[in-house]
Amino acid sequence: MLTMQDALARLTAYWTDQGCLVVQPMNTEVGAGTLNPATFLRVLGPEPWRVVYVEPSVRPDDSRYGENPNRLQTHTQLQVILKPDPGNPQELYLGSLTALGIDVAAHDVRFVEDNWASPALGAWGLGWEVWLDGLEITQFTYFQQAGGINLDPPSVEITYGIERIIMALQGVTHFKDIAYAGGVSYGEVFGQAEYEMSRYYLDDADVATNRQLLELYAAEAQRLIDEGLPVPAHTYVLKCSHAFNVLDSRGAVSTADRAAEFARMRRLAGDVARLWMARRDELGHPLGLVSPLPPAAAFEAAPAGDTPRTLVFEVGTEEMPPSEARAARAHVQRELTERLGGTRLAHGDVRVHATPRRLIAVVTEVVAREQDHVRTVKGPKAGAPAKAVEGFARSQGVPVESLETAELNGVQHLVVRRPEAGRAAPAVLADVLARVAGSLRSAKNMRWNDPQLAFTRPIRWLVALWGDEVVPLAVSALLAGRETRVLRTAAQPAISVASAETFMETLAVNGIVADAEDRRELIVTGAQDLVWNTGRIDVTGESALIDQITYLVEQPTPLLGTFDEKYLELPAAVLTTVMRKHQRYLPVRDADGTLLPMFVTVANGPVDVERVRTGNEAVLRARYEDAAFFYRADRQIPLAAMRDKLQRLTFTDKLGSMADRAARIAELAGSLAPRPSATLERAAQLVKFDLGSQLVTEMTSLAGVMARDYALNAGETPAVAQAVYEAELPRSAGDDLPASVPGALLSLADRLDLVAGLAATVGLPTGSSDPFAVRRAVLGLLAVHRAHPELTGIDLTAALAAAGALQPVEVPAAVLADAGEFLAKRLEQVLVEEGHPVDRVRAVLPHAGRPSFADLLLAQLGRLIADPQFLALAEAIQRARRIVPDGTPAGYDPAVLKEPAEVTLHETVQAVRAELPADADLSRFTTVAGPLTTPVNAFFDDVFVMADDPALRAARLGLLATVRDLGAGLLDWPQLRL
Amino acid sequence: MLTMQDALARLTAYWTDQGCLVVQPMNTEVGAGTLNPATFLRVLGPEPWRVVYVEPSVRPDDSRYGENPNRLQTHTQLQVILKPDPGNPQELYLGSLTALGIDVAAHDVRFVEDNWASPALGAWGLGWEVWLDGLEITQFTYFQQAGGINLDPPSVEITYGIERIIMALQGVTHFKDIAYAGGVSYGEVFGQAEYEMSRYYLDDADVATNRQLLELYAAEAQRLIDEGLPVPAHTYVLKCSHAFNVLDSRGAVSTADRAAEFARMRRLAGDVARLWMARRDELGHPLGLVSPLPPAAAFEAAPAGDTPRTLVFEVGTEEMPPSEARAARAHVQRELTERLGGTRLAHGDVRVHATPRRLIAVVTEVVAREQDHVRTVKGPKAGAPAKAVEGFARSQGVPVESLETAELNGVQHLVVRRPEAGRAAPAVLADVLARVAGSLRSAKNMRWNDPQLAFTRPIRWLVALWGDEVVPLAVSALLAGRETRVLRTAAQPAISVASAETFMETLAVNGIVADAEDRRELIVTGAQDLVWNTGRIDVTGESALIDQITYLVEQPTPLLGTFDEKYLELPAAVLTTVMRKHQRYLPVRDADGTLLPMFVTVANGPVDVERVRTGNEAVLRARYEDAAFFYRADRQIPLAAMRDKLQRLTFTDKLGSMADRAARIAELAGSLAPRPSATLERAAQLVKFDLGSQLVTEMTSLAGVMARDYALNAGETPAVAQAVYEAELPRSAGDDLPASVPGALLSLADRLDLVAGLAATVGLPTGSSDPFAVRRAVLGLLAVHRAHPELTGIDLTAALAAAGALQPVEVPAAVLADAGEFLAKRLEQVLVEEGHPVDRVRAVLPHAGRPSFADLLLAQLGRLIADPQFLALAEAIQRARRIVPDGTPAGYDPAVLKEPAEVTLHETVQAVRAELPADADLSRFTTVAGPLTTPVNAFFDDVFVMADDPALRAARLGLLATVRDLGAGLLDWPQLRL
Repeated sequence: MLTMQDALARLTAYWTDQGCLVVQPMNTEVGAGTLNPATFLRVLGPEPWRVVYVEPSVRPDDSRYGENPNRLQTHTQLQVILKPDPGNPQELYLGSLTALGIDVAAHDVRFVEDNWASPALGAWGLGWEVWLDGLEITQFTYFQQAGGINLDPPSVEITYGIERIIMALQGVTHFKDIAYAGGVSYGEVFGQAEYEMSRYYLDDADVATNRQLLELYAAEAQRLIDEGLPVPAHTYVLKCSHAFNVLDSRGAVSTADRAAEFARMRRLAGDVARLWMARRDELGHPLGLVSPLPPAAAFEAAPAGDTPRTLVFEVGTEEMPPSEARAARAHVQRELTERLGGTRLAHGDVRVHATPRRLIAVVTEVVAREQDHVRTVKGPKAGAPAKAVEGFARSQGVPVESLETAELNGVQHLVVRRPEAGRAAPAVLADVLARVAGSLRSAKNMRWNDPQLAFTRPIRWLVALWGDEVVPLAVSALLAGRETRVLRTAAQPAISVASAETFMETLAVNGIVADAEDRRELIVTGAQDLVWNTGRIDVTGESALIDQITYLVEQPTPLLGTFDEKYLELPAAVLTTVMRKHQRYLPVRDADGTLLPMFVTVANGPVDVERVRTGNEAVLRARYEDAAFFYRADRQIPLAAMRDKLQRLTFTDKLGSMADRAARIAELAGSLAPRPSATLERAAQLVKFDLGSQLVTEMTSLAGVMARDYALNAGETPAVAQAVYEAELPRSAGDDLPASVPGALLSLADRLDLVAGLAATVGLPTGSSDPFAVRRAVLGLLAVHRAHPELTGIDLTAALAAAGALQPVEVPAAVLADAGEFLAKRLEQVLVEEGHPVDRVRAVLPHAGRPSFADLLLAQLGRLIADPQFLALAEAIQRARRIVPDGTPAGYDPAVLKEPAEVTLHETVQAVRAELPADADLSRFTTVAGPLTTPVNAFFDDVFVMADDPALRAARLGLLATVRDLGAGLLDWPQLRL
Repeated sequence: MLTMQDALARLTAYWTDQGCLVVQPMNTEVGAGTLNPATFLRVLGPEPWRVVYVEPSVRPDDSRYGENPNRLQTHTQLQVILKPDPGNPQELYLGSLTALGIDVAAHDVRFVEDNWASPALGAWGLGWEVWLDGLEITQFTYFQQAGGINLDPPSVEITYGIERIIMALQGVTHFKDIAYAGGVSYGEVFGQAEYEMSRYYLDDADVATNRQLLELYAAEAQRLIDEGLPVPAHTYVLKCSHAFNVLDSRGAVSTADRAAEFARMRRLAGDVARLWMARRDELGHPLGLVSPLPPAAAFEAAPAGDTPRTLVFEVGTEEMPPSEARAARAHVQRELTERLGGTRLAHGDVRVHATPRRLIAVVTEVVAREQDHVRTVKGPKAGAPAKAVEGFARSQGVPVESLETAELNGVQHLVVRRPEAGRAAPAVLADVLARVAGSLRSAKNMRWNDPQLAFTRPIRWLVALWGDEVVPLAVSALLAGRETRVLRTAAQPAISVASAETFMETLAVNGIVADAEDRRELIVTGAQDLVWNTGRIDVTGESALIDQITYLVEQPTPLLGTFDEKYLELPAAVLTTVMRKHQRYLPVRDADGTLLPMFVTVANGPVDVERVRTGNEAVLRARYEDAAFFYRADRQIPLAAMRDKLQRLTFTDKLGSMADRAARIAELAGSLAPRPSATLERAAQLVKFDLGSQLVTEMTSLAGVMARDYALNAGETPAVAQAVYEAELPRSAGDDLPASVPGALLSLADRLDLVAGLAATVGLPTGSSDPFAVRRAVLGLLAVHRAHPELTGIDLTAALAAAGALQPVEVPAAVLADAGEFLAKRLEQVLVEEGHPVDRVRAVLPHAGRPSFADLLLAQLGRLIADPQFLALAEAIQRARRIVPDGTPAGYDPAVLKEPAEVTLHETVQAVRAELPADADLSRFTTVAGPLTTPVNAFFDDVFVMADDPALRAARLGLLATVRDLGAGLLDWPQLRL
């Protein structure tokens, strides 16, 4: 059996064989190998660096007294840095797995998008977590920035999670059972330290001491920066970081502390990084300089034949994130079509495919040459001085006599006409494809060893074939050829392709399913086939997940795994969250939709199904065991005790703890309630209590779900349990909404509190920056209100003011006004997106504070808009509005009205006013105010409003203004286009 | 070429093959691998443990900005712990060198005594530094105690100094030039960190911050101990230790701080160790228990022949320290002779030999059997009651009739006589040798894997042969045999010996020179032969060193090395100190005694002389380079600047800095001087300045020597330079004494200041504890005073008071009195040891404050004691003393004296008093007071002292008291035995 220490030795030996130095772990506590100066400092600057080292990584937060089978306060990382990117780091990495004795062809080894950022270090990179049969065993990152400095060249960082790898290889389910060395288990060697250090980090570390340490370390780091000594300064930054982590695991860090501390560490780390760069410059870069890759030189195109041929263009990449692969596919489709359109090269269909590792464009019937054409070179205007004309002719190398005249933009110009032969297809295509390749961009671009390119992941190869010929394409350091790559684990991972026409077939023969729809089909039918006799896959419900999986594999191999039935005792949301979010597994359900103890995962390529199944089952078991561990522990704890923990969770520095926030929500919900409710009262006491549970701490997306479960378990009524659950709804756009009134009230109160508090302290979101998800909260407010017409009496604008009054900070009226406006804008957006005509939406927007009422009005408008009575009434009112100058008050002296039409109108207006209820909706208004139409129209027919007598004129205008204002509170009438 | 990282990998692989676990370095700064819990905690308790790990060891004090070729603030240790002792750890260790590619037979690999103790950890062990051609490459220790707890079983600790080993193997002279990995030098990888961390430790670490850190760490350690968590507590003890080291390297630790901090750390470390043991007990010793070695079972002795044969008894050990080997040799000689004497086994000579690895006793002509003899069993007295007689006979199993009578201690007893056959020699010898082996002890004993034995180093084998036969000897787990061991590097390291008679020859054939005199001869003549045509070895002067070397090798192979002549510019004391103390090399001089650039070292066994020479030369070069580095640096610094550094060196917390002390010495020396002296004045300004130099900081034994050198270099007069040198004399018993008066005055002042200050603060030494060497200082005072009769006017007692008055603390009169008494006791001891009769010594002891005067008196006494005139005078004075009661004042009324004899005496006394000078010595006294003899004797003949008349009696007694007191200040007359 490969022991853990053997594994470390083998990996170290493997990487030293690849030219890596070996250094020692950092001699101060670090949370990850990245913090070791052998990474953090060495990735900076232009010097090459290859290193491998072991790093015991201390995560106080992961302390579990050694009881959790998969979580340790100190775990062992093996860290590799390759600087510059050697061009084949993934292949080298797979070689290291082979060195460990892992048959990478039999197992399902996958590169699954996982980007990395350390705000405290001003560092980030793009890359993957590497999965071995569903188990994350390695973090693989192209390091892009450290200390706020762009890394040039970027480094490849490979971080192995040794305990996990070994547990998988040894088939043990608790880290303590790892065979650390011959005859000695991990638990025997490290068990006591694991327990005791957990005790320290969770229970016994002195908070005041660690705070003092943090300050002393930070001051020393700053002093050393001022002295120009980056190496010791860095050490003190690391000590800061650890002291901070200790405080954090002791629950002694508020959100404000955290933000301030991160800012300080980021500043210090940035200073250290800049100093280091400067010092290395001064020292003349003792390790030398990285030479950039030379640009590729395109060869001469072979003479093109005559017959139209297919064009294939393949951009080979390392594993793209699914969303990026899809976006790139669309981009290439558009870009290539456009660029080809810009040539005179006739061609057939353009089809583009994407897999995680490639973008393929296939263009049929690309002719051999561009059409010949005549180019017109514009000269001076006709009749220009002779000198100018001569000059033009000379510059074009033609005699003046040969100049012609042509109308360009309506003006006569002298021109030269030059017949140009169309270029051969390969040359044209080389230009086009170079531009397409160079135009590839993603939402978040990275750099690798290429001197010019930037994309979501490295581009490693190009295939460009026109028929049998290679298109003479060079893009930065890449030269296109006829060699494509198939699965890395194939016997022959690189394949020469005979011609563009056989390209897709060649891929297919080698197992690559290039077409996404084909892959999706394989996944869906494969999954269904696997479960047909026991259950079913909710293909519709899991559609987003299936889409994602489609772009995670090139050769989908669905396989069925099972898990122990006992885990079905866990809430279904826990089970599915783990399956979907963490593992990309498809849940399997029975006919009633109840979860079955099985899952479908989709491996990539012709793996050894038994092994991969076993591996994935072990991963799921470990995750469920983890969850079950927390679940059992949580259910032992009284709800009140859990809720007490909220006092230790800071919401924001100015807005107090989560306990403060929960209290505000409770009070606000009570004040919004139309009538007293025992359910609401109790639910309000409990609201958010599950944030104090271990399971929700681990899986925050389960907030509310666990509250309901724990509440029921603790003997609360189903209504109370439902309300505390619903308080968290909706968690995202399209999520369920609270069904019960207490739930809705709590949900509203929650969001009102959030919006009012943050608007006053952090400000309302602008652009895409919305760290506290205020926008989502506002959308939630609208959705909940709209779902509960019985709460239509609640005016959210007023409720925001009430929420503001409960904040520990002052919420000025101007802020509330802004918040109200923000809410109205969101409502307008939502309603328009739902398909309501903009004019109607704007017409009901005065009721943004009561969106369910706005809904009602919109619905009525939808009906009434076809009702002649309403239209006539609306038109009559509009007529009144149009003639009355703005600002005319709705009042008049009826005594001066004499004409019968005006008297009739006066009387009708009085009658309508008397009958119209204050809270009338549009139907009611139409009914009540309908009788106005005729008198209004009669008034306009019979009465001259602008009488000479000012008193009479005033009375007539006042009468019309009264008509105008009858429905003023109901709709923004001028918005309405009838 | 073997790179450093290859070497680490090979050593790690070698030791894992020996069953060692690999763990990671400690993730907090440690000064040595010993501090890693994988050593410090794991050596405690009964669980087995084998581990290998790399430990970057941080020694702030060794910071040199990366400039010194051999000294680094962080060096790399590779640490191995073997628990229990596997029985052959040295052989395993040699195997590891072989694994590194070192030909241990060609090189000179030696185990040179070096014991280890860490007062701060309450830890110690016995062992060696391992030399590779004179270079210390490894620390090899049998760990005996940690945290104040005896280790049972003890562990073997092997600590490789990797940089040194690699420098030697790669033949580079600066650590930066080490090939760390292929194509990358150590300097390229670590150079910047070395510089910057040096800056931190030497210049930039904030003292106040580190003091605070120290206190916070200590408090946290204590809290964690109270919480019962040894693992995190240990971490904080380590952090304490590092913070302390940083303060120390910043020169911010006073002697008192140091003592207090060590005491605290020792206490904390002890608590941690006890807690750990208790926790491991509670956990049921997860790694199991070490099984002790079973006792060896002795076989049956073969039937002995008839002829007398030689006995050989060899105790095979690991390398004993020279002094212990010599002592053990004497012990075995004595013990074996005595024990054999206690048997009835006739035998010839007993001769004992010792080498570093064995004790051999050879006893010639040991007869085959003990003589037969008759044992007498004592019964009741003759004539006892019949019952008692019968009982005795019954108990002896004989009839009453067979009882005989014998006189025992002069009383007639009934006895039984039992003839007993002598036992065969093997059985007798087995008993005797077991006792001899079991009696082996040393000044400092250690334990190893043997369950019972304890000795200076492990005993690994026993040979016991009587003629051809193995003596059936078992001692604890060891069984004697006929197999001896020769050089470990021999082709056949274990040799079977045919018989006792051929034992010595067998050893000799295999190269072992068992006899110390033979080895000494080989060394001396070998060394002389090597240098005969160029220089000479000062065999007499280097006698102690040669004695030591004699016990460092079993097969002396002297070889000549040279060093660069440029180093001869260094002071000779520097050169010889390095050669003798650090390297055990014999210096080579020319006919005038001037050092030549060469040395003789004595390798062990048939090494490859060229390689070993080269290696030793490199070591010496490195050491001289080190010294030259400091020497050059020191000579750049003005003397005043060096002296200013004394302000940063604390003498003791209560007695101020070294600068304060030097100022006191200067003032005191001036006040003691009989007359003003420009030399003294200048020397006093400089005194002790070289303690501020780097070279003296490194090699404290050069204090004074360097002062003279640097003073001359700075242009001081030779007399001043000599005086600052002499101020430090004598540095040990038998050392040179100051020759000049200024030197003597400074030397006295130095020692007076030390004694007065420490007596008042720390107390005078009692027993063997004398951390500040007050006893040596007092002996120095006496020696210097005695060497300078021209300073006889200085009374050390008075001078102590003067020194006391200059202290920053009050020195009470009682303390001064105690110090005076302490000084007198030392003088008495010294004089008696010099062979002076005790009575005379005691007689002159009143002059202990002026020891040179005491010397004068003693010399005079020595002469006068044979002088009848003196004897008569002394006798006369004694007569007077005897008759006068104690306390009788020396005064009388001459008027009442009437008798001629008394009048004559009165007149003579008056005359003597008038003539006797106040500072008379004994000769003068005898001359002046000589005339008293006759009148005194006449007085006693003629006058009845105890007259009835009280006035007369008083006058007569007063007259005699006056006689008594005439020489009272000169000698303590009653002490004198005439």
